[in-house]
Amino acid sequence: MQHISSVSPLVRHLSAEARRAPESGIVEVINAGRERDDLVPLWVGEGDLPTPDFICQAAKQSFDRGETFYTYQRGIPELRQALAEDHSKLYGKPFSAERFFVTGSGMQSIQIAVRCVAGPGDEVVYAAPAWPNLPAAVELTGAHAVPVAMELHDGRWELDVERLFAAVTPKTRAIFLNSPCNPTGWVAGREVLQAVLTETRKRGLWIIADEVYGRFFYGAGTAAPSFYDVAEEDDMILYVNTFSKNWAMTGWRAGWISAPRALGQVIENLIQYSTSGVPVPTQRAAIAALTQGADFLADQISRAAAGREAIVSTLSQVPRLQLSEADGAFYLFFSIDGVRDSRQGALDLVRETGVGLAPGVAFGAAGEGYFRLCYASSLKRLETAGNRIGDWAAQYKVAG
Amino acid sequence: MQHISSVSPLVRHLSAEARRAPESGIVEVINAGRERDDLVPLWVGEGDLPTPDFICQAAKQSFDRGETFYTYQRGIPELRQALAEDHSKLYGKPFSAERFFVTGSGMQSIQIAVRCVAGPGDEVVYAAPAWPNLPAAVELTGAHAVPVAMELHDGRWELDVERLFAAVTPKTRAIFLNSPCNPTGWVAGREVLQAVLTETRKRGLWIIADEVYGRFFYGAGTAAPSFYDVAEEDDMILYVNTFSKNWAMTGWRAGWISAPRALGQVIENLIQYSTSGVPVPTQRAAIAALTQGADFLADQISRAAAGREAIVSTLSQVPRLQLSEADGAFYLFFSIDGVRDSRQGALDLVRETGVGLAPGVAFGAAGEGYFRLCYASSLKRLETAGNRIGDWAAQYKVAG
Repeated sequence: MQHISSVSPLVRHLSAEARRAPESGIVEVINAGRERDDLVPLWVGEGDLPTPDFICQAAKQSFDRGETFYTYQRGIPELRQALAEDHSKLYGKPFSAERFFVTGSGMQSIQIAVRCVAGPGDEVVYAAPAWPNLPAAVELTGAHAVPVAMELHDGRWELDVERLFAAVTPKTRAIFLNSPCNPTGWVAGREVLQAVLTETRKRGLWIIADEVYGRFFYGAGTAAPSFYDVAEEDDMILYVNTFSKNWAMTGWRAGWISAPRALGQVIENLIQYSTSGVPVPTQRAAIAALTQGADFLADQISRAAAGREAIVSTLSQVPRLQLSEADGAFYLFFSIDGVRDSRQGALDLVRETGVGLAPGVAFGAAGEGYFRLCYASSLKRLETAGNRIGDWAAQYKVAG
Repeated sequence: MQHISSVSPLVRHLSAEARRAPESGIVEVINAGRERDDLVPLWVGEGDLPTPDFICQAAKQSFDRGETFYTYQRGIPELRQALAEDHSKLYGKPFSAERFFVTGSGMQSIQIAVRCVAGPGDEVVYAAPAWPNLPAAVELTGAHAVPVAMELHDGRWELDVERLFAAVTPKTRAIFLNSPCNPTGWVAGREVLQAVLTETRKRGLWIIADEVYGRFFYGAGTAAPSFYDVAEEDDMILYVNTFSKNWAMTGWRAGWISAPRALGQVIENLIQYSTSGVPVPTQRAAIAALTQGADFLADQISRAAAGREAIVSTLSQVPRLQLSEADGAFYLFFSIDGVRDSRQGALDLVRETGVGLAPGVAFGAAGEGYFRLCYASSLKRLETAGNRIGDWAAQYKVAG
């Protein structure tokens, strides 16, 4: 992860927060490899299928109806209702449409959730390694993002809840928890969620719950354990989510926040002063995804499950390569003996083999020494990638 | 303009900046009138035509090509190139594609521009009355927005540049100037722009130049005077703009920032950590607007010019109603004798006549006592509105 250096006198005149915002640690690797003919790109968190036609059709028909004007800041009522119904079905209890707020991406959901609860000088504690955009969004509000490293025990990531709360200070406003986790695939058990909730209730802290990968769960049940399973409607929890992963809509920029209804006007204002709402055709597409997308989503999940099985089966044969076991998301997080500098390792790997992975250090210091591989891809691609990674790992010269 | 009161204990736990973000002063009036059958809504800053078909087609074809994946944070190269060519043509000098950054709306352009230059404790000075989203975006970064009231002389708004800079303190990081102005229609002359530029250069301040209505100019020439006419490529100016007004694309959420190239990586990072880019189909639509939209834009401008002439001609006959003269944008800003409380006046007007206007106080204290009328509308609508406003003004009981 690089920080902007003062390359130009103009940059020195920018705000400290803007200058400190880090460059993506993945893009550098992408730039090093994107032109290769034999590229197998598994570095980004998106699948290889375009958005299905029935979703695109809904947007097109909306254009045809002339739905090209300003609209509700909180989202069109039909989409908020569809979100409520989808959640009711998934979590087996009633949800009100009033608690859903449509945003211009999961990223914007995080930005708004952070802005809701934290300001200059405040702190947000989060489990690491983590998607780097979270700490970056926190720092951009003038608050500080405080990582608590998860630990690898017997090949599985674990979150020590006591250690998490040991990082809480009087300045802490929120705990950010992402489960299933990008990049590790770790899934918080119900008892972990309950423990985090109990402790935040006691201390008057917010939870920002990133459950974007909740449906990509390879344990028992149709979804990973969720704060919805243990929390009340008016608990201090802001759920951030996106249409991107479930329905192959990464390029659409559409997400949502689920929050206590009392926050409605504040969230509306924060949407107003950032993007002023989401296009109606996009929202029609999102409704199609929610109401007609069950089969497509089931295919996505079983495709990811098959990809996971295939790549685990290949890479678990590779000497000097350590897989961590995990039950969710669509990422494999692994290390190779002797590769301590994951940025250099990812650059070498893509240059020498054409396999594009995200370097673990892009997910913070707690991720150094690891690689993230996205297995939401075809089996053929994954087979090619697995074999090339195996050969490369076997030949890698351990430094020093 | 109302501030969020602590209606719920949950709201009291939010950050101070989020709680302070004001509610839109226009929405309250809209809510009071939106159900009327005979409504003539001239309260919002958008025309009454949907986006033309050739623009929608470009988006639809992009969906058909499967352009539904993540894309460049700065915008696709073709759109940045189209923006450069459009600017070169309009301002008669070369522009590099590298200085253009695609955003998810003019609003997001403002948010990012403010975030670039200002942080907690800093100040941004702006001419008022102004679009309320600007000061709100400034305050949400933790900075302070400092209004300098423009003055009405002989029925024309004027900006006293000396007074503007008298508000500058050691904490000031930027001057925000919106010309043509929403809500007054005021257009800064070239000499005003030159004076502002000279002074900011001397003091090392940024300019955030909102020239969104630059083509809606009723003086001589194809565009209002612009900072592009007086500034160099690397002056400390962030131009914020949108596709919304020129090409009837308000609902699309697409805009751009034009800035010195040296800021590229910082702006890319700020896009990454807010919305992570703009959908490719939206960008294809924007390219169609720029490259095939000249005739449509010319129609939009002449339609606004005709609307302006019609509504000015009707309202200038109304006793006790004071028009201010202005050369740009598509708003009329006027007052009625005895109406001091513009919020109450706008609520009364829409309830009693069905004509929806924006209350001047929604644009800050400097706008109190005025109404904003959007004349980007059909002549028939404007005639109806003009007559009803005239009758209402004639009967309005002066309080006290």
